[in-house]
Amino acid sequence: MAQQKPKTNPGRYFEDYAVGQTLVHAVPRTVSGGERALYHALYPARHALYSSDEFARACGLPASPIDDLAAFHVVFGKTVPDVSLNAVANLGYAEGRWLKPVYQGDTLRSESEVIGLKQNSNGKTGVVYVRTRGLNQRDETVMEYVRWVMVRKKNLEAGAPETVLPDLKPALDASDLVIPDGLDFSNYDFSLAGEPHRWGDYEVGETIDHVDGVTIEEAEHMMATRLWQNTAKVHFDLTFRPEGRLIYGGHVISMARALSFNGLANAQMIAGLNAGAHANPCFAGDTIKAFSEVLDKAETAAPGVGAIRLRLVATKGDVQDVHNGQKDEKGRYKTDILLDLDYWALMPI
Amino acid sequence: MAQQKPKTNPGRYFEDYAVGQTLVHAVPRTVSGGERALYHALYPARHALYSSDEFARACGLPASPIDDLAAFHVVFGKTVPDVSLNAVANLGYAEGRWLKPVYQGDTLRSESEVIGLKQNSNGKTGVVYVRTRGLNQRDETVMEYVRWVMVRKKNLEAGAPETVLPDLKPALDASDLVIPDGLDFSNYDFSLAGEPHRWGDYEVGETIDHVDGVTIEEAEHMMATRLWQNTAKVHFDLTFRPEGRLIYGGHVISMARALSFNGLANAQMIAGLNAGAHANPCFAGDTIKAFSEVLDKAETAAPGVGAIRLRLVATKGDVQDVHNGQKDEKGRYKTDILLDLDYWALMPI
Amino acid sequence: MAQQKPKTNPGRYFEDYAVGQTLVHAVPRTVSGGERALYHALYPARHALYSSDEFARACGLPASPIDDLAAFHVVFGKTVPDVSLNAVANLGYAEGRWLKPVYQGDTLRSESEVIGLKQNSNGKTGVVYVRTRGLNQRDETVMEYVRWVMVRKKNLEAGAPETVLPDLKPALDASDLVIPDGLDFSNYDFSLAGEPHRWGDYEVGETIDHVDGVTIEEAEHMMATRLWQNTAKVHFDLTFRPEGRLIYGGHVISMARALSFNGLANAQMIAGLNAGAHANPCFAGDTIKAFSEVLDKAETAAPGVGAIRLRLVATKGDVQDVHNGQKDEKGRYKTDILLDLDYWALMPI
Repeated sequence: MAQQKPKTNPGRYFEDYAVGQTLVHAVPRTVSGGERALYHALYPARHALYSSDEFARACGLPASPIDDLAAFHVVFGKTVPDVSLNAVANLGYAEGRWLKPVYQGDTLRSESEVIGLKQNSNGKTGVVYVRTRGLNQRDETVMEYVRWVMVRKKNLEAGAPETVLPDLKPALDASDLVIPDGLDFSNYDFSLAGEPHRWGDYEVGETIDHVDGVTIEEAEHMMATRLWQNTAKVHFDLTFRPEGRLIYGGHVISMARALSFNGLANAQMIAGLNAGAHANPCFAGDTIKAFSEVLDKAETAAPGVGAIRLRLVATKGDVQDVHNGQKDEKGRYKTDILLDLDYWALMPI
Repeated sequence: MAQQKPKTNPGRYFEDYAVGQTLVHAVPRTVSGGERALYHALYPARHALYSSDEFARACGLPASPIDDLAAFHVVFGKTVPDVSLNAVANLGYAEGRWLKPVYQGDTLRSESEVIGLKQNSNGKTGVVYVRTRGLNQRDETVMEYVRWVMVRKKNLEAGAPETVLPDLKPALDASDLVIPDGLDFSNYDFSLAGEPHRWGDYEVGETIDHVDGVTIEEAEHMMATRLWQNTAKVHFDLTFRPEGRLIYGGHVISMARALSFNGLANAQMIAGLNAGAHANPCFAGDTIKAFSEVLDKAETAAPGVGAIRLRLVATKGDVQDVHNGQKDEKGRYKTDILLDLDYWALMPI
Repeated sequence: MAQQKPKTNPGRYFEDYAVGQTLVHAVPRTVSGGERALYHALYPARHALYSSDEFARACGLPASPIDDLAAFHVVFGKTVPDVSLNAVANLGYAEGRWLKPVYQGDTLRSESEVIGLKQNSNGKTGVVYVRTRGLNQRDETVMEYVRWVMVRKKNLEAGAPETVLPDLKPALDASDLVIPDGLDFSNYDFSLAGEPHRWGDYEVGETIDHVDGVTIEEAEHMMATRLWQNTAKVHFDLTFRPEGRLIYGGHVISMARALSFNGLANAQMIAGLNAGAHANPCFAGDTIKAFSEVLDKAETAAPGVGAIRLRLVATKGDVQDVHNGQKDEKGRYKTDILLDLDYWALMPI
């Protein structure tokens, strides 16, 4: 084999980041009904606003958007080659906001700004904070979120950068949320939506066991992950990870959110992502179940639209058991917990 | 875990039904090319009218419709949360008719009327008969069928309702079938359709072994079942059914119908469903094969269009063996038989 | 079971072919965003021209076409019932050219001309050469290729036909390639495409290890193969091949080509297929990896567009090992090699 400088992407190492850098992520994507159909084949997604053009129009939108998490995955997937190819851990999310619904025919691309850096005391890794924006073909930001990951250093001799820790909100305030133009739940059809429970029926502190479970297959998570053009080797290559292909954390998010339809059918639109932890790895053969806890509620200026802050916990074990506490006595997530997500959704009042 | 009245859907029990009730099923669905592509990826579907806009136009339709069974699954899936969540058995179908082709961009919703009830002598279950209609965004009925299921009682103290048994036709008459507006097989292209055999070439009593077989995978049947937004737990959750996820009966129907292309490539459109039995459960790993028997033939008023009544039998065993008899000496289906379906199709004369 | 002349397709045997015959293949297909989404879910396809309408427009095309290999599979799949149902081996490809991009909404059909025949000395099989054309709804040829297969004789008494061997080019000359109307890479966006390497950066003889690997699942290859309406029994029916379902060779081609994005992200369009060998069978559980070798380079008349001739080798073993030689001392492919493909692609200069 002739020697040459490799043309393949080695990914970025910790020393390759600098605060203020803008990373223009590759491979824009035009979405169509194909993405939606696949999303609904891969997850038990049933929120009516994302299933029916007619229902969406009755809520003031021009058509049924692509599922909010599908838009998130498209935006996120593009960042992987630049942000997380050499990541050791996906540490957190904050300040995620959906700013514009994404419709069939829209083309999405992503950009990230490096907003924080902190080398770890071991000198071998560091934490990189990026604020990622998804933009459509009109250069409108359709969503944004902050994510931080632990990334390996390649050159251990490289000096530590000045530590910059971004000032991140522990949770968005309801007033930070952006309601899609025209959204109006005044004439919301609860029968077609699938459940009678309105915003006013939920109490802060209430928990909902979503009852249903799905046992995950390899073909499914790989199809999902590829559809979002996420290229991380760990999800696909059993020779690279003989102990089992790691399932993309976003697959668990979408599965849990779709399962949450049963009890939260009217939490239609995701408007904000406050925080999220992929508590333990998920593998094919695991059965995902989920429960939600109502963390907060707020009114909005849009007609008939309330905001509800939800904690969504996914487990591969018994839901009742994890209801009773998700962490052990040392504050670590129990091994059955897969996901602990904190988000804002929009509901009919 | 705080106590609260569960917001999740418990499903209806036998005592929750009354003759004359209308059930408005949730989650309307707009279909696109995505649903068609997935249908053709999940089943070896090749009927030309459902594959090519050009072929469909040459047959007098405005475009290629969504496969008739895909339309059926979309309509059927919506009924599951209201009709069969607590069903013990799916007992039968009758009087199914496809009334309007469904096109990309159409939005479907479903409604069912309870048309019959009969409590079983054990006092623990009863049979519920519903007539389900699928409607499009113009409130046109695109299809309808009767289905009856055995449903558990929750409150065993509840009194038995008056027994009402609907008067159902053992099979539709050809004159009951609705031919899509404009359908014209006068200039039908047999080369592009894939086989030379026309309506006149089939004889009542003739059987056709469809030769091909497909070994089923978990990922496939779950993707299909989710795409139709069918939420029955038994199909997805291996902790709920450790003995194996039960495959949605409609997956077997679509697989068998697609396999029947080989020998019935010109039985293009499904116009009526006379009867159907899911004779035995199907699991991943089973190999589905099929044969058809010509039960009846009739002319129609549409140019070049004949009607053919077919029995479609799917088996996980040897086709030749089941050809020789599908039931044992006690009149029970042999354990290899998965499906026994009786339907009307439209063919070029 | 009543006796009747089978209506199913027995496929053609060697004695059924004659040089000069035209085979009109069945089941035209209208493609949509659904086919694209599925292609991108089944393969890690990321070439920007096939992902983004905006990117394609910036390159002078009206929209993002269907992936070239997806177009190939659609055209190829239709030929299976007429060409390879009784084939013992898929021997080679030559003179493949992509003549027009295929867009969503296009309807494809296929025709093949028999251009060569040679009975083998054993008298039991023979080689059939066909030139296949894919046509769109305007009767424009969108692609063409020559393929030859070894086919069984059914009637061993049938005389050997006159041997006709087509005069095939070992490789297309760059001047044989057809550049899509309007294609212009003058303002090519390397950031959005994903890599900075332009045509001028590649040297003849250079090899690129594409690094990534994908472990194949049964559900995936069957979904792909069905989507292309390829009906060959060996891919689907485990009772027919208890030793394992054979994966459609085209699945390996698409997987390897998609993996080649890593290092060849700017080899956007496939313009010519010079040769191809499915060196060994592929089964579920195999992990596909790939490397490319630059065989040739040429300029084209289109603004900013260069042609690059690439050899794409897929292996289920160690890439470094196969880099060092793909054949054993007897000239046979090593058992790990799955694919050896020779094609022309178009790149920004």
